[in-house]
Amino acid sequence: MNLKLQWLRNKMSSLNLQGMIISNPINIKYLTNIEAEGTLLITPKENIYITDGRYVEEVHSILTLFDEIIVYDLKDISKEDYENVFSYCENVGFEENYITYSTYKECIRKYRINNFVETEDIIEKQRMIKDDEELQKIIKACEITDKCFSYILEFIKPGMTEKQIAREIEEYYRKRADGLSFETIVASGENTSKPHAVPTDRQIKEKDIITIDMGCKVDGYCSDMTRTIFVGEPTEQMKKIYDLVLKNQEIALQEYKDGANARQITKMIESDFKINDFNLIHALGHGVGLEIHEAPFINSKNEAVLKENMVVTDEPGIYIPGKFGVRIEDTVHITKNGCIKLTNSEKNYIII
Amino acid sequence: MNLKLQWLRNKMSSLNLQGMIISNPINIKYLTNIEAEGTLLITPKENIYITDGRYVEEVHSILTLFDEIIVYDLKDISKEDYENVFSYCENVGFEENYITYSTYKECIRKYRINNFVETEDIIEKQRMIKDDEELQKIIKACEITDKCFSYILEFIKPGMTEKQIAREIEEYYRKRADGLSFETIVASGENTSKPHAVPTDRQIKEKDIITIDMGCKVDGYCSDMTRTIFVGEPTEQMKKIYDLVLKNQEIALQEYKDGANARQITKMIESDFKINDFNLIHALGHGVGLEIHEAPFINSKNEAVLKENMVVTDEPGIYIPGKFGVRIEDTVHITKNGCIKLTNSEKNYIII
Repeated sequence: MNLKLQWLRNKMSSLNLQGMIISNPINIKYLTNIEAEGTLLITPKENIYITDGRYVEEVHSILTLFDEIIVYDLKDISKEDYENVFSYCENVGFEENYITYSTYKECIRKYRINNFVETEDIIEKQRMIKDDEELQKIIKACEITDKCFSYILEFIKPGMTEKQIAREIEEYYRKRADGLSFETIVASGENTSKPHAVPTDRQIKEKDIITIDMGCKVDGYCSDMTRTIFVGEPTEQMKKIYDLVLKNQEIALQEYKDGANARQITKMIESDFKINDFNLIHALGHGVGLEIHEAPFINSKNEAVLKENMVVTDEPGIYIPGKFGVRIEDTVHITKNGCIKLTNSEKNYIII
Repeated sequence: MNLKLQWLRNKMSSLNLQGMIISNPINIKYLTNIEAEGTLLITPKENIYITDGRYVEEVHSILTLFDEIIVYDLKDISKEDYENVFSYCENVGFEENYITYSTYKECIRKYRINNFVETEDIIEKQRMIKDDEELQKIIKACEITDKCFSYILEFIKPGMTEKQIAREIEEYYRKRADGLSFETIVASGENTSKPHAVPTDRQIKEKDIITIDMGCKVDGYCSDMTRTIFVGEPTEQMKKIYDLVLKNQEIALQEYKDGANARQITKMIESDFKINDFNLIHALGHGVGLEIHEAPFINSKNEAVLKENMVVTDEPGIYIPGKFGVRIEDTVHITKNGCIKLTNSEKNYIII
């Protein structure tokens, strides 16, 4: 059986779960490498993946005997089969943060489950710690992102629209990676004051400030990086805010290490912003892996502790409504004594 | 108050619901035009939208006084505020097919809800019937799709890959619409035998058959059209299957009208396919609106009845594994006495 399924069975045993229903496709990809529509059932004796006719052939081509996963086409499963799957289980776990209320009710009925038990994100928590293979994929996605950023700096010229620049980034990723990890943000001028701006037809002008938030995937694993750049010399106000954001982004990098408290680090950045009459209006960072936003969430409300081999972002930003904003973000790998930056694009004033 | 919120309040009143929590962002966009991350609360006296700092500015810019929606930043809401929202409500509705089991429990706790009531997709059901403004957006998306198809017929040349063609379609849409309604399908040769083919690096050859399934969005509203075309004269077998699919696609168009039974129409097509030794292996159609696939679902298992001002697809297909497939699809507007095709590209043999 593969190592991740072995880990899950040990974990279930420690929680007195004899069975588990896994519905979240990201967790299924993590445990089995399957990317399809279906459900993974862990029963006392077997690992069962139920899918439909469209995916059976593809799923079989991904799995090896070593995985020890039996694949069924759901049209071949009878009412009785469903009722028998967990018949010897006292407790069956489920993903309370994934399945809908109606699926919850449906599962209890369909599988005749005795005790349907919330599993408190056991798989998501395990996913926070990356193994070597996962790290290599994220490192590759970050390298492609750095190269794409260098390329796009040469590409951007006044007169181009935000949409044109975003499309060029996406085209670059499509050729060299397994797609985007999220919709690329290219915001210019006053649009940079919105943290989640969507690229518009606004044309880049002389003296503009531009925020680019970009990332790609390599075999499902994401990268995430933001840079704020200038068309011509920035104004004094822009410089002042850029310096403050960058200083705090680097302070956080110094604090990120095994054992560090995510809440305390965020509070530190928040208070330095406050002293300067600004606010940190979003989280400081988040985990990165099979999802672009995953645990741990680094903000002033979450007591998460950073651990060796987590991969997280560090992305403070300041936004002045109607005027402009600055955000600087890296994806980093947490180690025993510090952290390693995986995105390495320039962070001093970038003037094009 | 806007008409859709007025409708919802009347509907809630008829179901004895004094409050409702709306979490599905598509339903929120439908009711309020807001596209952000947040929750809409319908209380006895107010309509409240709770979002976070990232979206407050943008949401305010979308709403007018006429909407009568109060926007809160969730950081400004206290524990007591949450408890007071529904304090005079006996029954509060929720979207059981959208919210997770843990959100369900969290809502009951946070808002101190007495009876938390499943609402059986009331908003999704209302979304099936399009008003004039919604129809205009879908009509526009369909017009752009027809024009894009004309353009792409001129563009396709032997030697190009499926991916190249798909990218050209997407580029066309990005310039003229608000993005894609789904990932474009361009399948050629034997790849056309897979209904959900993903564009590959296969090059178009002389004598190929090509299936293109495409659609774009206009202000969130989708279009959906499929055509199967030929590079040079089709074979007799291709013609035979094409004729059979087209005949049935047109039979369905004749049957689509207010009051028609979706299941019966599908059965009719299925049985004509069977007489000719083929099977309809997927649904005949689906609703189109803010989602590319939404209610009503037109297949042989669903008792849906078509109603005036629904917008649905008509898309029979025949697939011969390892050889080729044919699918022909239009988006259509159901009227009192028939239906109006919204996609109008040629359906006789298209030979390039």
